[in-house]
Amino acid sequence: MERRPFDTLNDSIDKEVTIQLKEGQEIKGELKAFDAHMNLIVDKDKETLLVRGDNILFITFNKE
Amino acid sequence: MERRPFDTLNDSIDKEVTIQLKEGQEIKGELKAFDAHMNLIVDKDKETLLVRGDNILFITFNKE
Amino acid sequence: MERRPFDTLNDSIDKEVTIQLKEGQEIKGELKAFDAHMNLIVDKDKETLLVRGDNILFITFNKE
Amino acid sequence: MERRPFDTLNDSIDKEVTIQLKEGQEIKGELKAFDAHMNLIVDKDKETLLVRGDNILFITFNKE
Amino acid sequence: MERRPFDTLNDSIDKEVTIQLKEGQEIKGELKAFDAHMNLIVDKDKETLLVRGDNILFITFNKE
Amino acid sequence: MERRPFDTLNDSIDKEVTIQLKEGQEIKGELKAFDAHMNLIVDKDKETLLVRGDNILFITFNKE
Amino acid sequence: MERRPFDTLNDSIDKEVTIQLKEGQEIKGELKAFDAHMNLIVDKDKETLLVRGDNILFITFNKE
Repeated sequence: MERRPFDTLNDSIDKEVTIQLKEGQEIKGELKAFDAHMNLIVDKDKETLLVRGDNILFITFNKE
Repeated sequence: MERRPFDTLNDSIDKEVTIQLKEGQEIKGELKAFDAHMNLIVDKDKETLLVRGDNILFITFNKE
Repeated sequence: MERRPFDTLNDSIDKEVTIQLKEGQEIKGELKAFDAHMNLIVDKDKETLLVRGDNILFITFNKE
Repeated sequence: MERRPFDTLNDSIDKEVTIQLKEGQEIKGELKAFDAHMNLIVDKDKETLLVRGDNILFITFNKE
Repeated sequence: MERRPFDTLNDSIDKEVTIQLKEGQEIKGELKAFDAHMNLIVDKDKETLLVRGDNILFITFNKE
Repeated sequence: MERRPFDTLNDSIDKEVTIQLKEGQEIKGELKAFDAHMNLIVDKDKETLLVRGDNILFITFNKE
Repeated sequence: MERRPFDTLNDSIDKEVTIQLKEGQEIKGELKAFDAHMNLIVDKDKETLLVRGDNILFITFNKE
């Protein structure tokens, strides 16, 4: 089966990602969950964030 | 079953959340209800707010 | 059954609400009707308004 | 059956309405037709307008 | 059957219309075709235009 | 059967078109393919472009 | 069967593409995956990007 973009999201669960928002803001943290709208749960040191998917410009994953 | 972002919303019912709006405004209060569009009912001291989901940039939850 | 944001709208029929629009404008009046798009009928002293739902930032309800 | 916002539109056919557009423009005329997207046909003295619904901020109806 | 806004579009095939775009631009020409998204084919002297419906603010029809 | 706007797109395959984007940019080239979202493949001298349909303001076709 | 824009995306898997974003930013890299929303996985030297499709203005492919 062909590989799709959400497979990459799935492979990145529990890993560090950088989320670039359309408004220019950047969020770094550990990806904990996502859904079909690209809503993301990101874990940071002292808080957990639910990022609404329609704000996302791109997500950067570190190559391993 | 895999954990999804809305599970985190569900776990936060009756807890304090901080909602960052796309327009820059920040709303703090107790989360009372949500729906599939991320519309939220937030309880503040003297009033109750229905925040329309499409305005939300991200929601911050305190780690316990 | 779990409580949803539109239940709060429904409980506010015939009551005073304050609607904060995305453009910054604020509309106060008596809520008379709503639909699934959050389109609202609001009664003011001398006129009735149909507010298109996609303009809404949040709605404030007074606590009783 | 509960009253919905589009019932108010329906009651206003052949009556004067004021349409406030998101861009700030205001259109006054006689409402002749509408559809589920809130597209409106408005009759003015010398021309007929089809206003695309997604531009509408709110519509004002005179109380009778 | 009730009259709907697209009936007015249909009656205007092969007639002159003025299309006001959200960006401020105005397009005049003969309406040749339309679809459910309000995409329009407009005939001008030397060229034919396909106007994407989501850019439209309103369309003006001359009264006859 | 009534003629629709996408019939004009279909008749323009392998012909020169001018695409006016909402952002103001203009793209000229030979139309090679399109889909229901108005995504277009346009052939230029040294490169091929996939233009995402939601950026399009209007498309100009030369009359023959 | 008629050729569609996504066939061109499919032919470009493992090839260099240039993605022009609506915000003005340009992303170059090797296309690794895409989906029906035009979400793209792009491989760069040191990182992998998931570009959310609704940010895309156009994609440029080199002619071979």
